[in-house]
Amino acid sequence: MMLPFDILEYQDRLEKTKRRMEEKGIEVLLITDPANMNYLTGYDAWSFYVHQMLVIIIDEPQPLWIGRYQDAGGARKTTWIYDENVIAYPDYYVHSRHCHPMDFVAQILGQIGQGNRTIGVEMDNYYFSAKAFAQLQKYLPNATFVDADLLVNGVRIIKSDQEVEYMRRAGKIAEHAMMKGIESIREGGRECDTAAEIYNQLIKGTPEHGGDYPSIVPLLPSGENTGIPHLTWTERTYLNGEAVIIELAGCYKRYHVPLARTVSIGQPSEDMQALSNIVTEGIQEVLSAIKPGMTCGDIEATWRNSIAKHGIEKESRLGYSVGLGYPPDWGEHTASLRKGDTTVLEPNMTFHLIPGLWFDHHGIEISETFRVTENGCELFTNYPQGLIVRDPLSINPTDKIS
Amino acid sequence: MMLPFDILEYQDRLEKTKRRMEEKGIEVLLITDPANMNYLTGYDAWSFYVHQMLVIIIDEPQPLWIGRYQDAGGARKTTWIYDENVIAYPDYYVHSRHCHPMDFVAQILGQIGQGNRTIGVEMDNYYFSAKAFAQLQKYLPNATFVDADLLVNGVRIIKSDQEVEYMRRAGKIAEHAMMKGIESIREGGRECDTAAEIYNQLIKGTPEHGGDYPSIVPLLPSGENTGIPHLTWTERTYLNGEAVIIELAGCYKRYHVPLARTVSIGQPSEDMQALSNIVTEGIQEVLSAIKPGMTCGDIEATWRNSIAKHGIEKESRLGYSVGLGYPPDWGEHTASLRKGDTTVLEPNMTFHLIPGLWFDHHGIEISETFRVTENGCELFTNYPQGLIVRDPLSINPTDKIS
Repeated sequence: MMLPFDILEYQDRLEKTKRRMEEKGIEVLLITDPANMNYLTGYDAWSFYVHQMLVIIIDEPQPLWIGRYQDAGGARKTTWIYDENVIAYPDYYVHSRHCHPMDFVAQILGQIGQGNRTIGVEMDNYYFSAKAFAQLQKYLPNATFVDADLLVNGVRIIKSDQEVEYMRRAGKIAEHAMMKGIESIREGGRECDTAAEIYNQLIKGTPEHGGDYPSIVPLLPSGENTGIPHLTWTERTYLNGEAVIIELAGCYKRYHVPLARTVSIGQPSEDMQALSNIVTEGIQEVLSAIKPGMTCGDIEATWRNSIAKHGIEKESRLGYSVGLGYPPDWGEHTASLRKGDTTVLEPNMTFHLIPGLWFDHHGIEISETFRVTENGCELFTNYPQGLIVRDPLSINPTDKIS
Repeated sequence: MMLPFDILEYQDRLEKTKRRMEEKGIEVLLITDPANMNYLTGYDAWSFYVHQMLVIIIDEPQPLWIGRYQDAGGARKTTWIYDENVIAYPDYYVHSRHCHPMDFVAQILGQIGQGNRTIGVEMDNYYFSAKAFAQLQKYLPNATFVDADLLVNGVRIIKSDQEVEYMRRAGKIAEHAMMKGIESIREGGRECDTAAEIYNQLIKGTPEHGGDYPSIVPLLPSGENTGIPHLTWTERTYLNGEAVIIELAGCYKRYHVPLARTVSIGQPSEDMQALSNIVTEGIQEVLSAIKPGMTCGDIEATWRNSIAKHGIEKESRLGYSVGLGYPPDWGEHTASLRKGDTTVLEPNMTFHLIPGLWFDHHGIEISETFRVTENGCELFTNYPQGLIVRDPLSINPTDKIS
């Protein structure tokens, strides 16, 4: 056992989950989101590329873990659930043309008398495919299935003090990786070499706290590609006068703190400098407005009003709830900082505020990850917010923030 | 445009896909697997954490790309399809409680007259959730949906010469990362520091060819955890006498070459040495048996007979088809090297042969990635196969292979 949280914290999370199940009339909850599996039991392994799940039964004290035989040892090792609650399917179910792991799951649920109950499933999770649902429906014809998507994510939205502490550690890792990544950028350097340096720092972490893999790879578009936020690095080399966006996340025990900055190799264009000023001003206005009781929509309105003064609109959302995550996303898929989101801010909610602006041939990203406090907000990283100007030829210059 | 393959190669892939659609009576194919999207069009971005797809219409020459507004620029930039075939949904569809991206997709399909056709969907893909399917069914009530899972993956199983060339480059990257990773292992070193070194090398690649991110993080269980294949690294420090398994993949332009080796810090136990000998003998027997015309099942039988001589059985499959991939897997989910798999080997099929053996308190992995040739097989990496013995205290010793 190597649990990152006290067992009482896991039991509290499970209790909160069961209360939500009750409210929705769910008797059995099938959890396929690896972050939710981790949240409730500690389970942590790169095994989510095959079908697996937790089964939460409303009137049973312990979850069941059901997964692949070779992963069962990991479930016994990394979780607080009893060994007898770890149930493994044979390897011939994996990527088979003849049978599906959910056939096995349905059989188990039937055998333990859960086949005719109301069963919640995470309908829109990456790891609950259309086929997985079809097989469950086929082999559990007497069950009533209901959508329980984001049920556990809703519990996750308010962090415990221990979770906040892990995010602070992730924040330190993010700062350090950002600094080293920026230091590696120079005219003639390859995008992949900067990505390699960032990855090295993210995984090494600090001497006190080793890093974990982020759920999204570092994104670092340069030049014209700064207008396209989700392209990954290439082998191309940096040119003098180009901008480079770095969006990364420090990760500690699966808790993420994302951080984005924009770098100019040599003197920035007037346009870029103006954009940077608009974004940093907007960020400052947003951060000083945040307090509990506001809605996510209110935060976005503050931003919208700030940039509207300069005649700018942003098409995409301003941010989202962040924390525990597995690939392909570190966002929690619950609250978004956008118009119409009525989620009311409470202390220990955590968000990535990412006011990226993307145009046809250029773009800018400067972001912060914050925690809502009793009367305002706390940033998880301490990194200068303006456009970072690199001397194009030096190896390790002191950067100017402009 | 920065296409990694000639446009004729993409068109050939599309033709083969359409032939398979015809055989199955599919008029419209919705492709949500990011590897299949890349394979047919070149599309490459970390945007698969939101819903997106390619639409292949049997009687139209060009695929449609449908995805998020901020990703449309990436679709125009990285693919060969015409700009007008790139269709974007507004950001408010993303992680919304009120609407779903598939509602938009259904609307588009209806508008272009495809709503009453036979539509193939990738039922068991990570990026085709139960909810995605439910919404399509709801808003396209006159369509006939059929399972087209792995349809494109079936085309991918035989590589072109250019794909093989990219895998050779990935193999070089894998070799180099394995060497540097092993060099970083010593008594008192942290697992995360070794993972950081490996990642640095994987992403940096070679001076000629920059690395891409692997679809699975490097896995490097040590000590007792070597019995559990999918645990990721921790902050724990290595002890003298422990074993460390490293399973990684070099990746070039999304093409993977996995490679696993097992390291002993100081003298290995007699058990480990004996296991290593059994595994390497088995690998040699398998590699010398491979030739076109055999089935995947035949390969597994060769392995099974080899280890049976020593009284050992392996529960899990021996390997799988490998190549192009996105998280969470680099396997292609088609052919597996296991009993009953009747796939017949053809030249330019590529497999990861991973005869891992996992026990309660220890395990071993030594793997090779190979290409089937006209009369045998070619390995993508050149790395000594035995147990690698590290002097526990030296920084960069010459390792012994025993």
